[in-house]
Amino acid sequence: MINYPIKKTANPVNKSVSAANRGMNFESMINQTNEFYLDNDIAVIYKKPIPIQIVGVDYKRRSAAKITEAYYKLPSTTDYNGIYKGRYIDFEAKETKSTTSFPIKNIHEHQVEHLRRVKEHGAISFIIVYFSRLERIYLLDSDYVTEYYNRAKTGRKSIALEEFEEHAHFIKEGYRKPVDYLSIVDQYYLNEKS
Amino acid sequence: MINYPIKKTANPVNKSVSAANRGMNFESMINQTNEFYLDNDIAVIYKKPIPIQIVGVDYKRRSAAKITEAYYKLPSTTDYNGIYKGRYIDFEAKETKSTTSFPIKNIHEHQVEHLRRVKEHGAISFIIVYFSRLERIYLLDSDYVTEYYNRAKTGRKSIALEEFEEHAHFIKEGYRKPVDYLSIVDQYYLNEKS
Repeated sequence: MINYPIKKTANPVNKSVSAANRGMNFESMINQTNEFYLDNDIAVIYKKPIPIQIVGVDYKRRSAAKITEAYYKLPSTTDYNGIYKGRYIDFEAKETKSTTSFPIKNIHEHQVEHLRRVKEHGAISFIIVYFSRLERIYLLDSDYVTEYYNRAKTGRKSIALEEFEEHAHFIKEGYRKPVDYLSIVDQYYLNEKS
Repeated sequence: MINYPIKKTANPVNKSVSAANRGMNFESMINQTNEFYLDNDIAVIYKKPIPIQIVGVDYKRRSAAKITEAYYKLPSTTDYNGIYKGRYIDFEAKETKSTTSFPIKNIHEHQVEHLRRVKEHGAISFIIVYFSRLERIYLLDSDYVTEYYNRAKTGRKSIALEEFEEHAHFIKEGYRKPVDYLSIVDQYYLNEKS
């Protein structure tokens, strides 16, 4: 651990994060939840790797080719997908520091289109939004995502917190499943008690 | 196109490749098939990005951060997944130059385990193997993949062509859908005429 550059923003003190999930960023919370689902044979849901365009590779070391030049690409799909109780699950997870609304620009058009498409083919698709300063996490169905995305073309550019309260589902936090979104899927998509 | 290093193996003349798919590698053939499915609203199936571990990033140019050091990671899942007729589809695609068998070592243990897991949760999961010199493409269900993978631990380290002929499904080639694997899914998994 010697000579590592100092990380300026690593683990800032954030009093709004609960004891259970202190210091974990949202992606880690989702990933930990997915690991719990996987380890307990509940569901098989993974985060996709970040899409990058590889331009240069150094093959000098045979054991480990080193990528020397690459660029981030705009994702054409969402970050997460997998299977739960025979159903295809697809979602995007986003975090906002706003305490009043979620800016639509945080979601790409491709992703909205993807969520709509998979739903038409029978998927359960949604976004999960973490209002970090409010400590509130909502699951919003892709139908509403499409609706608000289209509204933003001519009208309001964000989804109000009140709209989440009305149309989205609040996800309770947990210790071993920080973001137990499948309990919402059970209750609202599969009509089961979780 | 000036000053590009000479590619030694680019597009070798290969008389065994059909007119329809001449010059296309197997990954491109699968991707083109998936694009056809997507464009015609048949299915939504994507190749996942290659998993890499990013070590260094240069943020000098604000418009496009440049990844300066990264390494390939072993994939924990398969390359392809998506949805078709409400069913979760998951598969790995592999090519071999062998004319007699498919070496098991071409598939990682993680991938075999992943195929088995998703199937248990209700997925349709399989591998697609392209015997490039024979111009034959087979779809082999994940149950057989698991079986042959386990056999390789103490016995034969490959799946014989005869075993593909007996237990796998031959995928006919096509022009617009170079590898029309969903016709096999229709016929053998969904019991429908495609």
